[in-house]
Amino acid sequence: MNSNKIKAFGTAAADADLKELNIERRELTATDIEIEILYCGVCHSDLHTARNDWGGTKYPAVPGHEIVGRITHIGSAITKFKVGDLAGVGCLVDSCRTCESCKKDLEQYCLTGFTGTYNGKDKHLGGHTFGGYSEKVVVDEHFVLKIPTTLDLAAVAPLLCAGITTWSPLKHWNVKEGSKVAVVGLGGLGHMAIKLAKGLGAEVTLFSRTAEKTADAKALGADEVIISTDAKQMKSVNGKFDLIIDTVPYVHDVNPYVSTLNNSGTLVLVGYLGELDPMLNSVPLILGRKSVAGSLIGGIAETQEMLDFCGKHNIVSEIEIINMQSINEAYARMLKSDVKYRFVIDMASLRNSE
Amino acid sequence: MNSNKIKAFGTAAADADLKELNIERRELTATDIEIEILYCGVCHSDLHTARNDWGGTKYPAVPGHEIVGRITHIGSAITKFKVGDLAGVGCLVDSCRTCESCKKDLEQYCLTGFTGTYNGKDKHLGGHTFGGYSEKVVVDEHFVLKIPTTLDLAAVAPLLCAGITTWSPLKHWNVKEGSKVAVVGLGGLGHMAIKLAKGLGAEVTLFSRTAEKTADAKALGADEVIISTDAKQMKSVNGKFDLIIDTVPYVHDVNPYVSTLNNSGTLVLVGYLGELDPMLNSVPLILGRKSVAGSLIGGIAETQEMLDFCGKHNIVSEIEIINMQSINEAYARMLKSDVKYRFVIDMASLRNSE
Repeated sequence: MNSNKIKAFGTAAADADLKELNIERRELTATDIEIEILYCGVCHSDLHTARNDWGGTKYPAVPGHEIVGRITHIGSAITKFKVGDLAGVGCLVDSCRTCESCKKDLEQYCLTGFTGTYNGKDKHLGGHTFGGYSEKVVVDEHFVLKIPTTLDLAAVAPLLCAGITTWSPLKHWNVKEGSKVAVVGLGGLGHMAIKLAKGLGAEVTLFSRTAEKTADAKALGADEVIISTDAKQMKSVNGKFDLIIDTVPYVHDVNPYVSTLNNSGTLVLVGYLGELDPMLNSVPLILGRKSVAGSLIGGIAETQEMLDFCGKHNIVSEIEIINMQSINEAYARMLKSDVKYRFVIDMASLRNSE
Repeated sequence: MNSNKIKAFGTAAADADLKELNIERRELTATDIEIEILYCGVCHSDLHTARNDWGGTKYPAVPGHEIVGRITHIGSAITKFKVGDLAGVGCLVDSCRTCESCKKDLEQYCLTGFTGTYNGKDKHLGGHTFGGYSEKVVVDEHFVLKIPTTLDLAAVAPLLCAGITTWSPLKHWNVKEGSKVAVVGLGGLGHMAIKLAKGLGAEVTLFSRTAEKTADAKALGADEVIISTDAKQMKSVNGKFDLIIDTVPYVHDVNPYVSTLNNSGTLVLVGYLGELDPMLNSVPLILGRKSVAGSLIGGIAETQEMLDFCGKHNIVSEIEIINMQSINEAYARMLKSDVKYRFVIDMASLRNSE
């Protein structure tokens, strides 16, 4: 298969800084779309992959799966997009499309494994996929999203991962007008969870370890902030919530939050991958028919639904725009939670380099 | 409030055998029903309460919450039952009836706490409630169940706890024709889970630690038995089940069972109260939108629905009938899992004593 060399930004090793490099993008098949990338959000997964925190990273690694841009070329069979349209790409660029999950528009749970936007297996060129820290991306139209034209484009980018990761459980667990939703943790995911739950008409509470995020949380739409280290405040919301979106990415005790679930309520983990330590106690689960669950990003149809919803309700991410060349500093700041609430790379900085 | 002395069987201390004693039953209010108890099932909770295994037992303790019998008197306001009808009483004899849970027919999750059939707070006479190891019981009609007349009455008794405890999660998690259900553990709860899931049209698998229960499980209706200690067999059902009813009453590793859930599947604990040790891993929860949940008995309307379903589908418990005077030996045998699958006391043995 023919391919074209383009500029990208990535790293050759877990302990090396990211820097400019060249990658290949395939020539378009009949069902492919080429997008000139205008903005790319910076997700914690980018950093974890670059540094091989989860193992399995293939190098050179080019992260980025919160991609928005403009369509520059389309394959001969494309009917739903045209050159010049805005378009987005999230965490998935392919899946088997035939398994039970894919047939239900749940490509993120593809039984044979979806193709990640980066560090996935490239079915066309061989090797592995390269993400959005690059000039262009070529993606099958099924995995390309339409972007509302009314929103700030840079601030749309994080919707493609942080947005859909919190939207999917809100919808799956049927959050609607009057639902009582709590969010644990106020970062990239947490701030989107607040905005989206509020957009759906829920009463939204943020759990935070300290009071310093209270004003910000309320500005984002939270009705209430509960300081999780304050026993009295925690008791005041005992048995309250229909759904808790737990965005905390490190090990933490979920038992105190389970106590704040209403009967038949669910706590959904979207940030932490690992053992529940301290151990989860089954007593409150049984005595209140409560659930502890997990959820992974979202399917393509659901992502489009979320983008359309955001267009209608004027919802975007809170962002800080950076140049591609500042990505290593941005990673260092992310590790200190020094970002409100998502870095987004202006890809003109890569395109115009040198 | 006036009361009448009747014969019962109970214990005065955690380390004492059960023996005959007298208790008081209140005189009927307008909405009360008096039932002559014909059979009472023997639940593990009876034993745990008698021996104060969970703490909080009040003595003398008279266990028994799988009660079937015949109505001997009714209060002046009763319209749905008449003297001579068969009737049943399960784990609940009262609740607040005004909270959000009670209003949804989920009395078992009453926000102020339901009144247990035994060891609950007696709102009428003061002190604590006494269960079905007795000649008669007086219960508000809201908590009295109609019993299908076509079934073996003794074998109906365990439906009032073991039956509803497994029925409620099967219904809540929408088990229907073609659902793939697994049951962990083949005891009083497990054997009812198999029968009820099969009755609902599910494909049913039993997880068992050893092969010795295979023939029995298949006779009860299981389509398949998977030996949980056999890695190859466990792998063969990876990602298979929509719902797992885990009836195991002691600490055990749930992680291998979570792996056998389908995407969006749920494992429901109904037997084990305590910490999940070894720790539950969130990775399979997130990668497959899976849930670990708990469930407690069932509401009154749901219990009636289950009894009606059993009447229609000719489903009862597998039982061994004992005399009241054999209860201490029965407890000893239960501790060795030496019962297929539920002891039921013929209460004539108490009524006719001496």
